Amino acid sequence: MISVVVIGKGNVATHLNNALLKAEDVTVTQINSRKLENIPAADVTIIAVSDDAIAEVSSKIENSFVVHASGASDLNVLKNSKRKGVFYMLQTFSKDKKVDFSKIPFCLEAENENDYLVLKKLAESIGEKVYSVNSEQRKALHVAAVFVNNFTNHLYKIGNDICNEHNVPFDVLKPLIKETASKIEILSPKEAQTGPAIRNDKNTIENHLELLNKNQQEIYKTITKSIQNGSKL
Amino acid sequence: MISVVVIGKGNVATHLNNALLKAEDVTVTQINSRKLENIPAADVTIIAVSDDAIAEVSSKIENSFVVHASGASDLNVLKNSKRKGVFYMLQTFSKDKKVDFSKIPFCLEAENENDYLVLKKLAESIGEKVYSVNSEQRKALHVAAVFVNNFTNHLYKIGNDICNEHNVPFDVLKPLIKETASKIEILSPKEAQTGPAIRNDKNTIENHLELLNKNQQEIYKTITKSIQNGSKL
Repeated sequence: MISVVVIGKGNVATHLNNALLKAEDVTVTQINSRKLENIPAADVTIIAVSDDAIAEVSSKIENSFVVHASGASDLNVLKNSKRKGVFYMLQTFSKDKKVDFSKIPFCLEAENENDYLVLKKLAESIGEKVYSVNSEQRKALHVAAVFVNNFTNHLYKIGNDICNEHNVPFDVLKPLIKETASKIEILSPKEAQTGPAIRNDKNTIENHLELLNKNQQEIYKTITKSIQNGSKL
Repeated sequence: MISVVVIGKGNVATHLNNALLKAEDVTVTQINSRKLENIPAADVTIIAVSDDAIAEVSSKIENSFVVHASGASDLNVLKNSKRKGVFYMLQTFSKDKKVDFSKIPFCLEAENENDYLVLKKLAESIGEKVYSVNSEQRKALHVAAVFVNNFTNHLYKIGNDICNEHNVPFDVLKPLIKETASKIEILSPKEAQTGPAIRNDKNTIENHLELLNKNQQEIYKTITKSIQNGSKL
């Protein structure tokens, strides 16, 4: 039996708490980070609060093993006096969308092997994909996630804007978006690259630029240049 | 019964021909565009060759109704002397990947209602999603597709590069990529936007930039600026 305290009340804390409530061999208590006076003892105390608040919250916790859940934060952001670790779930959590924990990669870090094994057991009680990721690797993953999630979503928004401006339903693009995402299951992104940039089809590129506003043009030119220089960098 | 000739031997022509072979109430003949001497008569002749070749190939065809399959080309690129149209399937076709035609949007255009209805019937014999899209709308869709497909795939490549440079398996990012693509089924891209750019989290942005090479930094800065200006443009 692993006893867990989850600190925080945002999306990550709530989804995690709900998952742990259903897990076998785990007991869990969720605590609001503004009410830290009476934290029960626990094998693992998971701080799932905003990055800026991790240091302060952790400094107030006397439990023996405290971990944070942030992809962007170093292990040493934790200011508790005892053992430290990281329990980072690499996924985008929305309030109203159900999360399938079996598909979430759990990126774990601890200061010693025993603590790592406890985190691993905990992750496996609600999920399937567990990775050992140190602070340097996690930082890289977090940047990479910004490219494939935040920035990709912004490209979807531009696609949506262009559709709106020309009275075409954005729905027409959704199957292509899904196919683009699933293609990399069988091809590397490098192999999967198609389009006028990689073909250096100057006519099409010029025609496209004519249709775009200044902001869209800047993104179009920057990414086209990057695709064409891809092999050199 | 609709009789169809498909001209071309690339991915689009071959996937389309294979689908039409299985359709009821359709007969189909596939012809290499270098062997145009003996084209059989047909209700619809579909030119599925590279954009540059459409004008020349179409000028040699005397069939009564000739359409091209290109998202980037105007209806008037066709140089046949009789009726014209467009049969554009908005999807990314790979040689070795099976295509699910039931999910492909068919974007159709014709010069008159009767011809449009023939194209619609043909599309519905192999697919389910049919849209009437004129040349101006199709051009916009094609640019939008470059953003959500070609450019998005390049962001995946950068994510992959960052993982390689820091010894993290790219597989860790794949569930996030899938979730990002499926999120827009229930949220608009504007609503789905998360991350340091939209939060204007300057610390995280600076930390991220330190980890990137010059080319990656340029893309990071350009898209971050665009996300932050999103509401003003």
